[in-house]
Amino acid sequence: MKLTILFGGASFEHEISIVSAITIKEKLAGFDLSFVFCDSDHTFYLIDPSKMKAVTFSKGEHKKMPQLTLTHGAFAQKKGVFGGAVEHNNVVLNLIHGADGEDGTIAALLDFYSIKYIGPRVDACIFSYDKRYTKYLCEAINVKSVRYEVAHKDELGNISISYPLIVKPTRLGSSIGVSIVKDESELDYALDVAFEFDSVVIVEPFLEGVKEYNLAGYFADGAMHYSIVEEPYKEEFLDFEKKYMDFSRSEQVLKADISTELEARLKANFDKVYRGMFEGALIRCDFFVHNDEVMLNEINPIPGSMANYLFEDFEKVIESLSSSLPHAKRPKVSYEYIHSISKAKGK
Amino acid sequence: MKLTILFGGASFEHEISIVSAITIKEKLAGFDLSFVFCDSDHTFYLIDPSKMKAVTFSKGEHKKMPQLTLTHGAFAQKKGVFGGAVEHNNVVLNLIHGADGEDGTIAALLDFYSIKYIGPRVDACIFSYDKRYTKYLCEAINVKSVRYEVAHKDELGNISISYPLIVKPTRLGSSIGVSIVKDESELDYALDVAFEFDSVVIVEPFLEGVKEYNLAGYFADGAMHYSIVEEPYKEEFLDFEKKYMDFSRSEQVLKADISTELEARLKANFDKVYRGMFEGALIRCDFFVHNDEVMLNEINPIPGSMANYLFEDFEKVIESLSSSLPHAKRPKVSYEYIHSISKAKGK
Repeated sequence: MKLTILFGGASFEHEISIVSAITIKEKLAGFDLSFVFCDSDHTFYLIDPSKMKAVTFSKGEHKKMPQLTLTHGAFAQKKGVFGGAVEHNNVVLNLIHGADGEDGTIAALLDFYSIKYIGPRVDACIFSYDKRYTKYLCEAINVKSVRYEVAHKDELGNISISYPLIVKPTRLGSSIGVSIVKDESELDYALDVAFEFDSVVIVEPFLEGVKEYNLAGYFADGAMHYSIVEEPYKEEFLDFEKKYMDFSRSEQVLKADISTELEARLKANFDKVYRGMFEGALIRCDFFVHNDEVMLNEINPIPGSMANYLFEDFEKVIESLSSSLPHAKRPKVSYEYIHSISKAKGK
Repeated sequence: MKLTILFGGASFEHEISIVSAITIKEKLAGFDLSFVFCDSDHTFYLIDPSKMKAVTFSKGEHKKMPQLTLTHGAFAQKKGVFGGAVEHNNVVLNLIHGADGEDGTIAALLDFYSIKYIGPRVDACIFSYDKRYTKYLCEAINVKSVRYEVAHKDELGNISISYPLIVKPTRLGSSIGVSIVKDESELDYALDVAFEFDSVVIVEPFLEGVKEYNLAGYFADGAMHYSIVEEPYKEEFLDFEKKYMDFSRSEQVLKADISTELEARLKANFDKVYRGMFEGALIRCDFFVHNDEVMLNEINPIPGSMANYLFEDFEKVIESLSSSLPHAKRPKVSYEYIHSISKAKGK
């Protein structure tokens, strides 16, 4: 099948999106792929598939490739003054991690121009991109999560959570700006680091002895489909460079050794998060299990390289998802009210 | 000052947006205004100010006017094959009510193309457009609201709220699809009406003897600015046509006869809702007061004709707001990680 991979973006995760796209290219080798790169100045480029290498972008070679603009139903490529436009109207896979891709911007653009896409819709982005809003969602749909406090750059209040604690910028993924704070002496530095990336940070207790499980899934053909459950390799903390490497994962991993009962509970929680909000997207939920309680840690609405390594037949996953995409209904405008008011006024 | 009024949209409120724009034109007579119309097929047109009449649109005359496209920093107007493009790079006032304007789509588009605008940002849209998410927000920021239940088109559960109750589509303003239900015999019809407009509806108790107060406001020049408090003219229920007329209000209204203490409580609640989310927008919060408790009924992030009638000097309001617009920070991409990884690999 034909598919356009959209990657890049004006985001701290720009580079890992490139890595993610390169990885996906290998995993979808049976597809007729095209690649649209969103540069950090928001110009779109059509990338020659043979040039899908990290150096193409770091050396700026993409700037010599054809520019694209958004038009109704497609990315359009100008063909000089006298030629018409070439349209690229495949289904798009939104693979822009972080800002632009996960904050609702790209979703809104593609919706506005009626371009079909795999990826989270605008509301789904808002509730997964900002860690505060994920907490709001958990509260509302009755999914447990770690308790938290919010700190603002301008008005630093007291933090009442006891040590060790974890400090995170609210609107960044990929562990950027995240610190574990063992005692008070480390707090100011950790907050400074986080405030480098965001004016709002959230603080959570660092739970000792927590188990971590990742589960991906999507809705297609009338049913939920789940990946295997992975127990991610755990260091105390993944720094950005290690996480970066993590976005290029392509080897299928082993199923976590957990009871059927726990697996069912993870899936039930995933379901509550997904339904009515994430349709059209393949997401990965990262759960904690602590004192036998399942808690949502975070929602990755565009996981690194689409969490391909959690699925047995990744091409089939993308094929079935792309045939089950939601489409926005647009109301017809009849001008009925303007007509009736004009009539009432005798005009 | 120069200002572009953006109106229309693919929404059930398309026509009231036109009415709103016509009203605003009169209220900002001292400005150098231009008008960009978003047709229901998402084509943008530059409207001749002298043609800002409802019939222009109902007769389709706008289709003969110049088309615009979004480019970096501006709406651009093509000037034929050999001419360059004309750029319209004023600050934009987003006056698209309902879908597109209030659901985050237009905000994302303008953000993506770095066009400055008065109006709610994407997250502010999500939390005000969908009535469920407004409830999530109230819960999280500790603002009281009317309790509610959610009904889905596909899986009608039991409603446990007692009569009389009120049924509303979750994602529509302007009273469209809203019914008051006196007893069980009226429920199915009311749900059918609401489901005409949305697949999800919310049900609330209809509170007898409730007082209603509207308060608008915005953040500019380092401080919150509030309108007078209005006690809106209350019928049991505003139908769409009456509400429609309501969007063309331009006469300043009288201040509600309430205590300074109640006014302060309304403002304190407004503040909690606004801060950290609605910066850049002039919003109107509609409050209920019931048993001496202040409750948020709804947030209008783009109120009809910008609630101009609640302010004494509306031109000054728009001027000061447009000089205090938030601007999104875009991270610089250094390709530092790609460089270091390439080095590590010896490439």
